[in-house]
Amino acid sequence: MSAVAQPLTVPATRSMADALRMLAIDAVEAAKSGHPGMPLGMAEIAVALWSRHLKHNPRNPAWPDRDRFILSNGHGSMLLYALLHLSGYDLPIDELKRFRQLHSKTPGHPEAGVTPGVETTTGPLGQGLANGVGMALAEALLAREFNRPGHRIVDHRTYVFAGDGCLMEGISHEAASLAGTLQLDKLTVLYDDNGISIDGHVAQWFADDTPARFEAYGWHVVREVDGHDVDAVDRALQQAHGTGRPTLICCRTVIGQGSPSKAGTHDVHGAPLGADEVERTRRALGWPHPPFEIPDEIRALFDASARGLADEAEWSEHFEAYRKHYPNEAAEFERRIQDRLPAHWRDAVRALLRDADCAAATVATRKASQQAIAALARSLPEMLGGSADLTGSNLTDWPGAIDVGIDRDDNGSDNGNESGNGSGNRSGNGNNDNGGNSSNNSNNSNNSNALRGGNYVHYGVREFGMSAVMNGIALHRGYLPFGGTFLTFSDYSRNALRMAALMKTRSIFVFTHDSIGLGEDGPTHQAVEHAASLRLIPGLDVWRPCDTVETAQAWVSAVERKGPSCLLLSRQNLPFVARSGEQIAAIAHGGYVLRDWPSDLAPTQHARVVLIATGSEVALALDAIAQLEAAGIAARVVSMPSTTVFDRQALAWREAVLPPGVPRVAVEAGVRAFWRQYVGLDGGVVGIDTFGESAPAAALFAHFNLSAQAVVDEAHRVAHGVR
Amino acid sequence: MSAVAQPLTVPATRSMADALRMLAIDAVEAAKSGHPGMPLGMAEIAVALWSRHLKHNPRNPAWPDRDRFILSNGHGSMLLYALLHLSGYDLPIDELKRFRQLHSKTPGHPEAGVTPGVETTTGPLGQGLANGVGMALAEALLAREFNRPGHRIVDHRTYVFAGDGCLMEGISHEAASLAGTLQLDKLTVLYDDNGISIDGHVAQWFADDTPARFEAYGWHVVREVDGHDVDAVDRALQQAHGTGRPTLICCRTVIGQGSPSKAGTHDVHGAPLGADEVERTRRALGWPHPPFEIPDEIRALFDASARGLADEAEWSEHFEAYRKHYPNEAAEFERRIQDRLPAHWRDAVRALLRDADCAAATVATRKASQQAIAALARSLPEMLGGSADLTGSNLTDWPGAIDVGIDRDDNGSDNGNESGNGSGNRSGNGNNDNGGNSSNNSNNSNNSNALRGGNYVHYGVREFGMSAVMNGIALHRGYLPFGGTFLTFSDYSRNALRMAALMKTRSIFVFTHDSIGLGEDGPTHQAVEHAASLRLIPGLDVWRPCDTVETAQAWVSAVERKGPSCLLLSRQNLPFVARSGEQIAAIAHGGYVLRDWPSDLAPTQHARVVLIATGSEVALALDAIAQLEAAGIAARVVSMPSTTVFDRQALAWREAVLPPGVPRVAVEAGVRAFWRQYVGLDGGVVGIDTFGESAPAAALFAHFNLSAQAVVDEAHRVAHGVR
Repeated sequence: MSAVAQPLTVPATRSMADALRMLAIDAVEAAKSGHPGMPLGMAEIAVALWSRHLKHNPRNPAWPDRDRFILSNGHGSMLLYALLHLSGYDLPIDELKRFRQLHSKTPGHPEAGVTPGVETTTGPLGQGLANGVGMALAEALLAREFNRPGHRIVDHRTYVFAGDGCLMEGISHEAASLAGTLQLDKLTVLYDDNGISIDGHVAQWFADDTPARFEAYGWHVVREVDGHDVDAVDRALQQAHGTGRPTLICCRTVIGQGSPSKAGTHDVHGAPLGADEVERTRRALGWPHPPFEIPDEIRALFDASARGLADEAEWSEHFEAYRKHYPNEAAEFERRIQDRLPAHWRDAVRALLRDADCAAATVATRKASQQAIAALARSLPEMLGGSADLTGSNLTDWPGAIDVGIDRDDNGSDNGNESGNGSGNRSGNGNNDNGGNSSNNSNNSNNSNALRGGNYVHYGVREFGMSAVMNGIALHRGYLPFGGTFLTFSDYSRNALRMAALMKTRSIFVFTHDSIGLGEDGPTHQAVEHAASLRLIPGLDVWRPCDTVETAQAWVSAVERKGPSCLLLSRQNLPFVARSGEQIAAIAHGGYVLRDWPSDLAPTQHARVVLIATGSEVALALDAIAQLEAAGIAARVVSMPSTTVFDRQALAWREAVLPPGVPRVAVEAGVRAFWRQYVGLDGGVVGIDTFGESAPAAALFAHFNLSAQAVVDEAHRVAHGVR
Repeated sequence: MSAVAQPLTVPATRSMADALRMLAIDAVEAAKSGHPGMPLGMAEIAVALWSRHLKHNPRNPAWPDRDRFILSNGHGSMLLYALLHLSGYDLPIDELKRFRQLHSKTPGHPEAGVTPGVETTTGPLGQGLANGVGMALAEALLAREFNRPGHRIVDHRTYVFAGDGCLMEGISHEAASLAGTLQLDKLTVLYDDNGISIDGHVAQWFADDTPARFEAYGWHVVREVDGHDVDAVDRALQQAHGTGRPTLICCRTVIGQGSPSKAGTHDVHGAPLGADEVERTRRALGWPHPPFEIPDEIRALFDASARGLADEAEWSEHFEAYRKHYPNEAAEFERRIQDRLPAHWRDAVRALLRDADCAAATVATRKASQQAIAALARSLPEMLGGSADLTGSNLTDWPGAIDVGIDRDDNGSDNGNESGNGSGNRSGNGNNDNGGNSSNNSNNSNNSNALRGGNYVHYGVREFGMSAVMNGIALHRGYLPFGGTFLTFSDYSRNALRMAALMKTRSIFVFTHDSIGLGEDGPTHQAVEHAASLRLIPGLDVWRPCDTVETAQAWVSAVERKGPSCLLLSRQNLPFVARSGEQIAAIAHGGYVLRDWPSDLAPTQHARVVLIATGSEVALALDAIAQLEAAGIAARVVSMPSTTVFDRQALAWREAVLPPGVPRVAVEAGVRAFWRQYVGLDGGVVGIDTFGESAPAAALFAHFNLSAQAVVDEAHRVAHGVR
């Protein structure tokens, strides 16, 4: 950071902290709703970080090399809004007065995209911390990819505020363990250790030695910092530099500090203080100003506009010098940080679809996905893959993948288990052919810790952590994260998928081994309700492709989307389906006619039916056509790889695909209720409404009567019922 | 334990371990599917535990005072099946030959209810550990409730096998932290520390100092035990006694031990060794017997039938002595351990419903739930409540609730935050009026550690851990667990809800603050898709009651059910609805006619419509009736508090409530697609298909057009469309 402000005098920091306090409690009071306890308790910590450490430019919240700040305990949103307002962001005082009101820029919890300077949406506890790990990881990898000797164009830190709630959540374990393993040394977490959560004193339900726990993760821990002493917090923040490890700063605070009657109690956590207690607080703090009025001299202490402009200007100078020496890298950096697709992207898409079509391969769609990844990664060096310890099953790696990891002396040898030939680096580590991304791994010497750059993250068995880390990576910009697990374990990460949808992050979730095709692993591993339930999350695109070509298009649509996508892929082989060029183009509409009936019914035909199918069941629908025709029923097969995309199409498209009045039968190896919205009460659905069983896949399809014959039977029923 | 076997000689333990190994790899080979690595690696650990420590009776897997054994790394299921078979459970060798085949007793992952001796269904990693915490907690509480001086009728241990995967999962943090806080000293976890997970050597993604981490949770940790030395594991297991804390035994093992070519590699984790390697392993172990043949002398070493019968007989003697002194307690214990409802249960139900009806109160359904809990707890001392740190919001406590907790010298004072008046015991701790459960807390002196018995668990901010712990409590028997959080955070625990449904455990999940009625906390906290998506989980009952009476019936149905239920409750007040006695009885059907149209249409009426509503939207439907009648449309209002229950009713009931052919409009503050299965393509749905917003609830209902007028408009549309 170029322009560190001089340490302020004690009275100034006191005034600053109290300004944050009063804005917070006055806004909560005006809203008659909100959480005063955390802003009151973390005010000095915020002053220390924001006035003495945080590198940011309030005039340009998108400056790529800004430090990232995350309020993982997002219920304390007023603290952040007060900081943003006073620092000079485009967040006028009137917005603070409209805290928690409809369409204000100050919603109840911080929302990325709504408020300038809010880096991620928080509230669901623990996820902000994991987002921060993702941002710190993105920074570390971008630095290794783009920095050059003498040119550190990527060099910023990630700061996270977290409370007891965040640290009780399981995701804090997953995220902190990964951050420690990867030695993300520019990540600093400030722990608001106030001993109180909503139910009261945490000692009765959270007796962890948290510092020891984080040391067990390999973190640098600063213990017992007085969280109400700005200088003490300042010193702790300085100690976070140069340790080669992520840092946890344990700040002892009093929740609701400043409130004479409620400080140190859970009563102050999540309800307005009440007008009387606000006034008592005002008097106790010696704060003479009316609500929402902050004296100019205190505003001046906060205002980071000038410093921010200067910092960014200095960085821009550096960047122009970099551009002079490395014009291609500079252009690529700018493209990447803006999430722009490369110029030749559409050519790559055409080639991908053409190749898949020409190869006409019958493979599992997880294999088709791997082929798509390999092809796309040649055009998209921003692809940052990974898996929650199922790489060989999810097939999320590819020939150009390079493991992100740590160069340890004791790599793999610290378990005493070297009796075998196992390799810890399955996805191509040591192979520098990373598919066009030639700058990867090229300048590790430029960085202080042992993290090896790369484009593949072994997330470990941490589905929720992985997904929230991916969201952080996507929010940071510079990479396109995708990560895999079995579809059934989307349950573990479900709220992170929801957050991705709410934030519109471009995270791509690769869920393989869908439904009973998984076979012997049994009902715990067989996703029967997951396709349907993921489709219910607003803004989450869900693809369940039926073959190589649909899988390729699903990838293309996911890459091109501003928002998250889930790819639901089969373990078992699925037959290739021949298509016209027009049909290939139609896949992007989410649902399209794959096999049509004749334009006029033959004299022997007495009815029509539309068969709607997805994924592994498209083949069943296709197999049913001939038998239905023989019985006088003309069948159209609609492949519906993405209902969420199809639902967004114009009515004309939807009615052209699903003509009103023609009876319909849907077939999918999952819960049937979902399909009523497409087939109606009188339509047919072939599916599974119970949990699966443990048996070979073929035995299961027979057992659950998921067959072409079942489709034929349902088609007969609905065709005759409605004729 | 009364009849500990004498330590076996080294050759015997070697033979026993190899018998487990060979059964496992031969079964995996026969199935051409499965996970040989863990059984090969944990064979000696299993021998040490099962032959020298585990107290169980293979002839009666339901013996209440048996030790509980949990295979949290459930993919190693063949190890458990081999142990059960050889120990004398009703699991013949033919079932092992049919490993992973349809309807065998040996599914791919262990399933409670399918295989005698399997205590819980495992496979989704980490949850078995949390189930174990629940079982250990249930044991500790039952002991405190039922044991008497000189009579320890509840005195058993819980053992968990766990691997790296379990310990990477976030839920391991939540469960272990809670177990450490509550000092569950009869819980012992055996950690298979083999340094390998599916992606390879874990050092690159899991560098935790796990022993230090568990010590930070307050566990007793036995480090660096040679997992292939039966005596070493035996000694470690002995060290687990009398520490006053849960114990983690860190066993260093080689995954796939015994396989000459694959031991120590991830290749051995999840795929058959192959016929050649199986034969090499057989030779390397010096195992001369063909597949599935175990010599009688080795069988005799394993057979626990005689010891088990003797142990249970001894316990039964103790129990009869207990019965002589404490006949009421003995009868109550038997009732509780069998999950039987008390004799006067139906009276209590009638009183509950009558009282709710007479009070005619307009309160939030979360408040109605609290009233139901208070009433039911008087009849059901087995009710064991709790919340994931939202007690005051979920209203899961009641006047008779007594906090489960720890008597610490430093209770609440170790955080230096004693400046306020907060109490760590909000739900009635210190109040010994526990609603008829007079034996609670009466004999803590009988137990070694500081755990206070009680009937309310402060689970901390650990939604997933809470839910899986609840499942463990329910599986243990003796308590009826319920726990609360906000509905949106059901996402965090979703897979535990699924597991509850798969296992049919009687866990009751109290989800309050549903949908936009939550108000200002905004979209992160507003569940719009959750009601619908929970209903898709097979076997999970979901209730969204509209007032006090429906809430009471929802509780009754949940208590009476063999299986899990979710109660979705409002933050805001909902008006009481008057009902006939017949209508009150009809609530249990899940959907019923709340207000009917006249039996004949009036001359001025030209159409009928059925309005279907749930929870907070029932009032909107009722409000729409008059306006519709004025417009000549006769409206019936169907209240549908539980679609899942309604769907199980006979066709005659369903068609009597929703007469075919009459147009329908559904109204629910959630995603609309779900309701197509009830209203069809031509019906109407008033709902919300996007995320919510942060604003006061009333503003949100207006903004999202969730109003009686919207119901009227839709009813007009569909009535005219179909007339």
